[in-house]
Amino acid sequence: MQRKPLVKETFLYLQVAAKIEKQIKDEVLKAGDKLPSVRMLCRELGYNMSTITQAYYELESRSLIETRPRSGYYVSLLPARRLDLPASSKPAVTKNIDDLDYLIGRIHEDSGRPEVTMLSLGVPHISLLPVAKLNKALVQATRTLPGSGTAYDPVQGNEKLRKEIARWSLSWGGTLNEKDILTTTGCINAVAYCLMALTQPGDTVALESPAYFGILQLAKGLGLKVLEMPSNPDTGIELDALKTSLVQNQIKVCLLVSNFNNPCGSSMPAAHKKEVVNLLEYHNVPLIEDDIYGDLYFGTSRPTTCKAFDESGNVLYCNSVSKTLAPGYRVGWAAPGKYMDKLLSLKRNHSISSTSITSEVVAEFLKNGRYENHLRKMRQTLHHNSIKYSSAVARYFPAGTKITQPQGGYFLWIELEKEINTARLYDQARKYNISIAPGRMFTLREQFDNCLRLSFGLPWNEELEKKIKLLGTLITATF
Amino acid sequence: MQRKPLVKETFLYLQVAAKIEKQIKDEVLKAGDKLPSVRMLCRELGYNMSTITQAYYELESRSLIETRPRSGYYVSLLPARRLDLPASSKPAVTKNIDDLDYLIGRIHEDSGRPEVTMLSLGVPHISLLPVAKLNKALVQATRTLPGSGTAYDPVQGNEKLRKEIARWSLSWGGTLNEKDILTTTGCINAVAYCLMALTQPGDTVALESPAYFGILQLAKGLGLKVLEMPSNPDTGIELDALKTSLVQNQIKVCLLVSNFNNPCGSSMPAAHKKEVVNLLEYHNVPLIEDDIYGDLYFGTSRPTTCKAFDESGNVLYCNSVSKTLAPGYRVGWAAPGKYMDKLLSLKRNHSISSTSITSEVVAEFLKNGRYENHLRKMRQTLHHNSIKYSSAVARYFPAGTKITQPQGGYFLWIELEKEINTARLYDQARKYNISIAPGRMFTLREQFDNCLRLSFGLPWNEELEKKIKLLGTLITATF
Repeated sequence: MQRKPLVKETFLYLQVAAKIEKQIKDEVLKAGDKLPSVRMLCRELGYNMSTITQAYYELESRSLIETRPRSGYYVSLLPARRLDLPASSKPAVTKNIDDLDYLIGRIHEDSGRPEVTMLSLGVPHISLLPVAKLNKALVQATRTLPGSGTAYDPVQGNEKLRKEIARWSLSWGGTLNEKDILTTTGCINAVAYCLMALTQPGDTVALESPAYFGILQLAKGLGLKVLEMPSNPDTGIELDALKTSLVQNQIKVCLLVSNFNNPCGSSMPAAHKKEVVNLLEYHNVPLIEDDIYGDLYFGTSRPTTCKAFDESGNVLYCNSVSKTLAPGYRVGWAAPGKYMDKLLSLKRNHSISSTSITSEVVAEFLKNGRYENHLRKMRQTLHHNSIKYSSAVARYFPAGTKITQPQGGYFLWIELEKEINTARLYDQARKYNISIAPGRMFTLREQFDNCLRLSFGLPWNEELEKKIKLLGTLITATF
Repeated sequence: MQRKPLVKETFLYLQVAAKIEKQIKDEVLKAGDKLPSVRMLCRELGYNMSTITQAYYELESRSLIETRPRSGYYVSLLPARRLDLPASSKPAVTKNIDDLDYLIGRIHEDSGRPEVTMLSLGVPHISLLPVAKLNKALVQATRTLPGSGTAYDPVQGNEKLRKEIARWSLSWGGTLNEKDILTTTGCINAVAYCLMALTQPGDTVALESPAYFGILQLAKGLGLKVLEMPSNPDTGIELDALKTSLVQNQIKVCLLVSNFNNPCGSSMPAAHKKEVVNLLEYHNVPLIEDDIYGDLYFGTSRPTTCKAFDESGNVLYCNSVSKTLAPGYRVGWAAPGKYMDKLLSLKRNHSISSTSITSEVVAEFLKNGRYENHLRKMRQTLHHNSIKYSSAVARYFPAGTKITQPQGGYFLWIELEKEINTARLYDQARKYNISIAPGRMFTLREQFDNCLRLSFGLPWNEELEKKIKLLGTLITATF
């Protein structure tokens, strides 16, 4: 299954790049093929040198082509075998009462062990983060904050940060202002407050399936029933299924990861987003939108959000800098629409305020444009990683393996042959200091036992290739 | 009502100080009286100069006596009128459905306005905090932490910090180790996780009365019924009333602020603590102990905790550095006994981890002994403030005013004549940029309308005396 490139063809060089990309995708240009020289392409297309050079640079930054010294540009060695996409999910009906807490706890513990290669959690490697610049901003923040950050922030959060988040919302077509925003202890804390504001134990929350285990456990812990909805690995939640459930009045609240979903990498097309917002508004069901991966797109423009289509305040938007800047800072936020008063009250009751100093650092980072520069590099690296990781999976995993083709975010979702149990694979891989996320964690039902999620947040290198090769060997040898 | 001094008479100089203190309390020595010279007292008591000097120094540090240059020591000008203590609370039976959220929200907003004199919230003034030293430790922490604090902490919290908290528990007779401790976003977040771990909506939590409005709102927000228990402003919860409620099987969980309670300043005597722990253990009712003010004692030794008597893990101990070091750091912790797994799971689901960098700074501060030095000075200042504030209340408030005599913490609880409504007083005082906490906030029932809580966290000066005088004038003039 092919997917349309996300590129908006506004600039000449992007148009050229898009044409070459299409030829690569259509295998007109094959892996290893030499591309025409810049000079030659100038003559052929009638554009100037700078346009062609920029186009090649763009394609190189996206790992589609590569330079070989003193030789020229070549099509990158993309997956030799192109793997199929997994099918849309059809969540099982039977429930399973196994407690996944133990497994999830073990995976969180893995992250504290430096000897373990963490392919399980969606955590940015330190080499992806602008640590030195953040440290400078930290010292600066002790000068600008009252009491150097020892004082409480306002309950709603650092005002400068809220202004910058509001300004940033323009990038996805939002028109928030600082009064619409409340800061939280990371994105999951924003989601938690939203769920607490909107539900009582026994209520039902509808999620895409598979779904992030953190959200599943959160919902379970709040005593909610989870309705795992059929979802497409490319376009997210199936609208027909959602309509049916809404008409049957089964849903109290809907919670979607609308861009580069965890674990499947799906992104709802803008038209789906608009339709979902209208549908939920009509049925008076609030939508919690988790957009934590939205800034990590591999194309050239930021995908929009459901919140951008929200006119009545029915969408509660959640985000953070935990995937892009500094997980340990615990800086997240919600734009909860008409539920702001409830969220303010919950935050006041449960934690009073956010950490003052890390809020100020993030505000400063957004304000002076450093965040944008940083994200540009980070996206290139993640895009590069996603290609390298999926190439390696194609090379080393057994026949019958299926894999997603995310256009952003951190994750590959891999479907193995039915008889392969990835919870057992986790145990085996763990002996070799590799931590993976078994598919079983992404559901509360009896399914996905043959799936796994791989995070590509670690930098690509030979060592990592060996680990993925080893995973492939373990799968082939054991099962 | 007189109260026994908390002084343990171990050192000679403390014995001497205690004797003089008794004479002052008994009004044998009256405000303004000249004390015998050091030399004279040496001869009289047969002790050496250094012992007597230390005794005088101790009394001076506690604002009981004062030096006049080239003249000698004098008994301080303590309250000219000694005000009565409020009686034990007898919580009203009728419930009131007023929403206090609005009032509480306004008071939190007051704290964001520099022109407002904040007598309402228990927040340490910046002059009480070791800001420069914390800033140094912050820079240091960027060097010792992985990724300079951009990386996630373990779910359970920074290990160094947990070790230091465990070591610190010795000060109240605890024997915790780092595995017993979980870090949280301040103390209220620890209390919130404990309540969520132990209750379902509809369950009943027993509290002292009056109680901290933050805890009342938290419990209400979680759908809990609140049983406000009769409490003594000196010794805390009335044991007989607790026994009755336990026998009647009314309580799912008990939540006590065992030392320097907010708002009344009561401290449970050690024998009460032990008895409560045994009683609750017998009835299989868990105890959440909020010890956030425990380190802020005005006597010479740290009061013990209920947790110190807990042998079965039935006590969930909560604390933070928000009242002592840096509210804006949001560093708190729980030692939840046998409920650790539940709390770990809740923390993982609701916020994943704590802010890495502020945890490390507090760990470092505890480790190198700076915390102890800092606390010593802070306690002296707060003790001094408590005397100055209550003297001013005695001087400027109308006849019939009753006031607590806290031996630690941040708060004076004041009972005015029945016809005086302190919610109206709040509105009036707010026009003069004074923020007070009306008594009505400290209950979910129809009571305490004639009470208020004053925080003495702001440094004492003439300006502040004028504000308290103005409050007195407003009360007298308006009602």
